[in-house]
Amino acid sequence: MLTLHGYFRSSAAYRVRIALQLKGIAYQSAAVNLLAGEQRSAAYLARNPQGLLPALELADGEIISQSPAILEYLDEQWPTPPLLPSQPLARARARALAAAIGCDTHPLNNLRVLNYLTGQLGVDQAAKTSWYHHWIATTFAAIDGQLGSAEFAAGDQPGLVDCYLVPQVYNALRFDQPMGAYPNINRIYANCGQHPAFIAAAPEQQPDAPAA
Amino acid sequence: MLTLHGYFRSSAAYRVRIALQLKGIAYQSAAVNLLAGEQRSAAYLARNPQGLLPALELADGEIISQSPAILEYLDEQWPTPPLLPSQPLARARARALAAAIGCDTHPLNNLRVLNYLTGQLGVDQAAKTSWYHHWIATTFAAIDGQLGSAEFAAGDQPGLVDCYLVPQVYNALRFDQPMGAYPNINRIYANCGQHPAFIAAAPEQQPDAPAA
Repeated sequence: MLTLHGYFRSSAAYRVRIALQLKGIAYQSAAVNLLAGEQRSAAYLARNPQGLLPALELADGEIISQSPAILEYLDEQWPTPPLLPSQPLARARARALAAAIGCDTHPLNNLRVLNYLTGQLGVDQAAKTSWYHHWIATTFAAIDGQLGSAEFAAGDQPGLVDCYLVPQVYNALRFDQPMGAYPNINRIYANCGQHPAFIAAAPEQQPDAPAA
Repeated sequence: MLTLHGYFRSSAAYRVRIALQLKGIAYQSAAVNLLAGEQRSAAYLARNPQGLLPALELADGEIISQSPAILEYLDEQWPTPPLLPSQPLARARARALAAAIGCDTHPLNNLRVLNYLTGQLGVDQAAKTSWYHHWIATTFAAIDGQLGSAEFAAGDQPGLVDCYLVPQVYNALRFDQPMGAYPNINRIYANCGQHPAFIAAAPEQQPDAPAA
């Protein structure tokens, strides 16, 4: 069985949980408490020298790090239902929207970066929140118009882009990001919120989430 | 023919140039001067609403943005020589190393982020350079041991990881990053520097590079 080393609030682990649920792949969760620094423990660094979440441990003990790599691996090894469209240009467009979030947005707001801003650079809480909002707003403003009017980001079935978009919106809402200017993102987020795979993958449903 | 909208020093455009050269795909270059702000022109934003480089324009005028998406598209549409290994775990490992650079390193040091640090946050030149070095050092220290002892990152032929690694090392050297602790990265970078595809893709060889 697969083991997902993650954390209930890790945006990148959340992406992978959604994909596992969409494909109906059985897995077990191994919690790595980011706030307690467990990602820098010797045990975890042996699995993933970057000390970042998530890491997917295969049944034979091999490890795959990096959510973009894990998502592509899952789609290649468990192709049904697909995360990516079949048409070449549509595949590229989906991967580009995923990268707009996975490369240009989330890494800037990752815990280690926020810690560097407040620690090494002495940035105060208000400026940190502005930074957080700025990068999300920049991306959401750019991609909302590309998301079309379908139920999910790439049509009538959820897929790769939704795996990235939902955790990013979840983070935005948690940090009180103004969301009024993104009608397509809001519609897709609401639709995903009704879907059993997204419900099961939500942070609050994870075994390491604190009791409500 | 393909048109690559890029800039000679854009790290993400450099990745795509390497892939185009490795595969021997004919293309033309359209320069977008980042320092002059041309990525925010109406003409460019119509091509890529994110206002980031590169964008690949297909023969029929369709546009693909985001270098990770472009590289996967090129590998699917021009499969020989491949950028990715054929074995599933090896493919995942290559994509994970690419994402370590493409998600966790380069976006933190992008021009727009450096401008935010100095502009909105009032970070001085020394602290900006420390930031730049910090994220590269963090990643390089984590991945050097995963790169093995082959000529290129994934064996005896260059591939996806080299497309990411070489522009990142180029940037590091340009900003006087200490590189002594990364023997595998240095060896691979030197080997790539002898390879015709990497030579042709180098920033100084591009039509928009200033005369030496």
